[in-house]
Amino acid sequence: MTEIKQTIESRARAAMKASITLANLSTAIKNEALLNMAAALVKNKEEILKANAVDVKAAKEKGVKTSYIDRLTLNDKRIEDMAEGLKQTVALPDPIGTGDLYVKRPNGLEIRRVRVPFGVIGIIYEARPNVTVDAAALCLKSGNACVLRGGSEAINSNKCIVSILQKAAYAAGIPEGAIQFIDIIDRDAVIMMCKLRGIIDIIIPRGGAGLIKRVTENSSVNVIETGTGVCHEYVDVYADLDMALNIAINGKTSRPSVCNALETILIHKDIAQKFLPMLKPALEKRDVEIRGCERCLEICPDMKAATEEDWATEYNDLIVSVKVVEDVEAAIEHINKYNTQHSDTIITQDIKNAHKFLTEVDAAAVYVNASTRFTDGFEFGFGAEIGISTQKMHARGPMGLEALTTTKYLVYGEGQIR
Amino acid sequence: MTEIKQTIESRARAAMKASITLANLSTAIKNEALLNMAAALVKNKEEILKANAVDVKAAKEKGVKTSYIDRLTLNDKRIEDMAEGLKQTVALPDPIGTGDLYVKRPNGLEIRRVRVPFGVIGIIYEARPNVTVDAAALCLKSGNACVLRGGSEAINSNKCIVSILQKAAYAAGIPEGAIQFIDIIDRDAVIMMCKLRGIIDIIIPRGGAGLIKRVTENSSVNVIETGTGVCHEYVDVYADLDMALNIAINGKTSRPSVCNALETILIHKDIAQKFLPMLKPALEKRDVEIRGCERCLEICPDMKAATEEDWATEYNDLIVSVKVVEDVEAAIEHINKYNTQHSDTIITQDIKNAHKFLTEVDAAAVYVNASTRFTDGFEFGFGAEIGISTQKMHARGPMGLEALTTTKYLVYGEGQIR
Repeated sequence: MTEIKQTIESRARAAMKASITLANLSTAIKNEALLNMAAALVKNKEEILKANAVDVKAAKEKGVKTSYIDRLTLNDKRIEDMAEGLKQTVALPDPIGTGDLYVKRPNGLEIRRVRVPFGVIGIIYEARPNVTVDAAALCLKSGNACVLRGGSEAINSNKCIVSILQKAAYAAGIPEGAIQFIDIIDRDAVIMMCKLRGIIDIIIPRGGAGLIKRVTENSSVNVIETGTGVCHEYVDVYADLDMALNIAINGKTSRPSVCNALETILIHKDIAQKFLPMLKPALEKRDVEIRGCERCLEICPDMKAATEEDWATEYNDLIVSVKVVEDVEAAIEHINKYNTQHSDTIITQDIKNAHKFLTEVDAAAVYVNASTRFTDGFEFGFGAEIGISTQKMHARGPMGLEALTTTKYLVYGEGQIR
Repeated sequence: MTEIKQTIESRARAAMKASITLANLSTAIKNEALLNMAAALVKNKEEILKANAVDVKAAKEKGVKTSYIDRLTLNDKRIEDMAEGLKQTVALPDPIGTGDLYVKRPNGLEIRRVRVPFGVIGIIYEARPNVTVDAAALCLKSGNACVLRGGSEAINSNKCIVSILQKAAYAAGIPEGAIQFIDIIDRDAVIMMCKLRGIIDIIIPRGGAGLIKRVTENSSVNVIETGTGVCHEYVDVYADLDMALNIAINGKTSRPSVCNALETILIHKDIAQKFLPMLKPALEKRDVEIRGCERCLEICPDMKAATEEDWATEYNDLIVSVKVVEDVEAAIEHINKYNTQHSDTIITQDIKNAHKFLTEVDAAAVYVNASTRFTDGFEFGFGAEIGISTQKMHARGPMGLEALTTTKYLVYGEGQIR
């Protein structure tokens, strides 16, 4: 155990050492490195596929879920997509070195606030090799060294990819040590990473609720919480019901496994009689299981009953909970009790109810007449996404490159004392 | 214990309930409340002084330090100053409701990012009754409900002050429950507050290193770390030595108990022979104890020797550690090893060394040719200060009203799906 701990700490320290040079590197060198990394991935495609095949074989033998295998599996197209992602990062504006405040004080002190990298970012994720490339690219572009820890089922793929990325980055002038990978399968490796306060500056967990809980509960390093989404659609009495139906279908079925998918639909009592008989067959046709409140069951007696637990559940699956509510106040109250502060939407043509919902629902993104599925760095126009923050500190909602930076005050004097 | 826990949780929940209305209150009502609170403090001066006398008497009987008694003691002037502080908060611009991003996406979605309160802020501080007023005012102006927990030695003063503030605020239209005070002396009350994730949104500890450590290590609520400052002055080979001396004296002696005071002076080896004999008598004349490295002792043999521990110590007292270093690189290396990422300054006339120091020292505020004592919300022109953040997440350096806010995306559609 001590040996594992030492390995992790020494890698994090190497990242810390590299981070000082990396923080002050020109955009040109960082972009050059990203292009080199893209080319190297394509060039070494065969090697990556070979390593990936080992992981896929082992995962299949372990009998894991098909969706899991799918995310783990690489092919020519997926490697080219990863390389494409690196090239897109080149096109993003460099967040480092820009200033957002300049004041000259009465005593002559000049104070500038400039954007600087965090230093070392730890990213803990599941068995998705593309996240390795993505995370390394966004950290590098924002001037941060990184310590990556991917799910153990992708260990061979990740080791191979990281080694290719490191060589390509360092050859382009990125300081050695800037990209670190923890190739230790032991689950405690995650906890050990989380204890490196003073070496790792922030940790971003990317993955399911279990992973995120383990990280937030054990970390002495500051964490940006991402991802869990119990998202709601509230169909107001003044809703366009066709629009509401469309958004319900889209929110639940377009990609049920993601965090911005819909989990609960709330319906105003005065339109429930009309809307539920529209909603039920439309969702059932798409294989969605519906779990309704008592009042739903009065209208549709063949509906499965929802339990208290359902309201707080992120199904990540073709299941949805439905509840009839008194009014917009009751909808907001339900949402503020059960949401994960991710994304919630109201469907209404009434400006007062829309305004009330927007101001009173406590979530990173609150919508009027649109699908919660849009909460996403690319859909928001940020050109990148390292995750979706569901906390209020530092960054909220989809996080682009800027979320990977902090600020620093530079103060210029001529001998001023206080 | 369970009873204490229930009391704390129910107060925090009351704050949470009030926070929804408070978040959307007009600036006019908030300002009205602040003025009411100011008037009420002055009007009830006698009552406050009586409660304070009980605390001061008990503290004296316990035999606590004089400086401690001084911070605890109120008088007419101090109560008027607290009222003045409330009035100054009225003059500050309201951070809530301003937007910092607006995009219309190709699909017609309109996305706005607006500034909103956190919700409920927990503030844990020591036995300084003025912090009670200050914290309540800044939370209120930024639209946040607050749960205050001051040092137990000030319990009677704080209870009296909070009750006056509550009455005055609620009479002006602030929702009841918005200002909460934990009048429980038990030290575990702090830990219990720190566990209320989901009710309290952030916790800001204000006080010494011990308090801050207890909070950061035990909190499941996000914490903004404030305050500890091991601040450095590096006297470069190209320094104006009179300026360097002036800044050393100011940094160490103008207010040794505060976090932006100087703790360590690093001196370039080529000027040490000249500068140390200037520095030593000047500091000693002001009762400063100097602890030097080996090379210092070669130049001034009667100097007390510094130990490894000294380099990492925030004395908060008339003690300073002094070290001779090879060059600017060695100075930066020492600082990045021992500083608390608060404030560090270089004294130099050389633009290259100044630039190197500014970019490579990892601290909230990095100075050239000025005293570290300026790291302060008022000195920076923010008009307020809830503390000085020494972490990189969310806010860094002096925190004004904006640091007490987060953002929220409001998204307007016309039925868009993805």
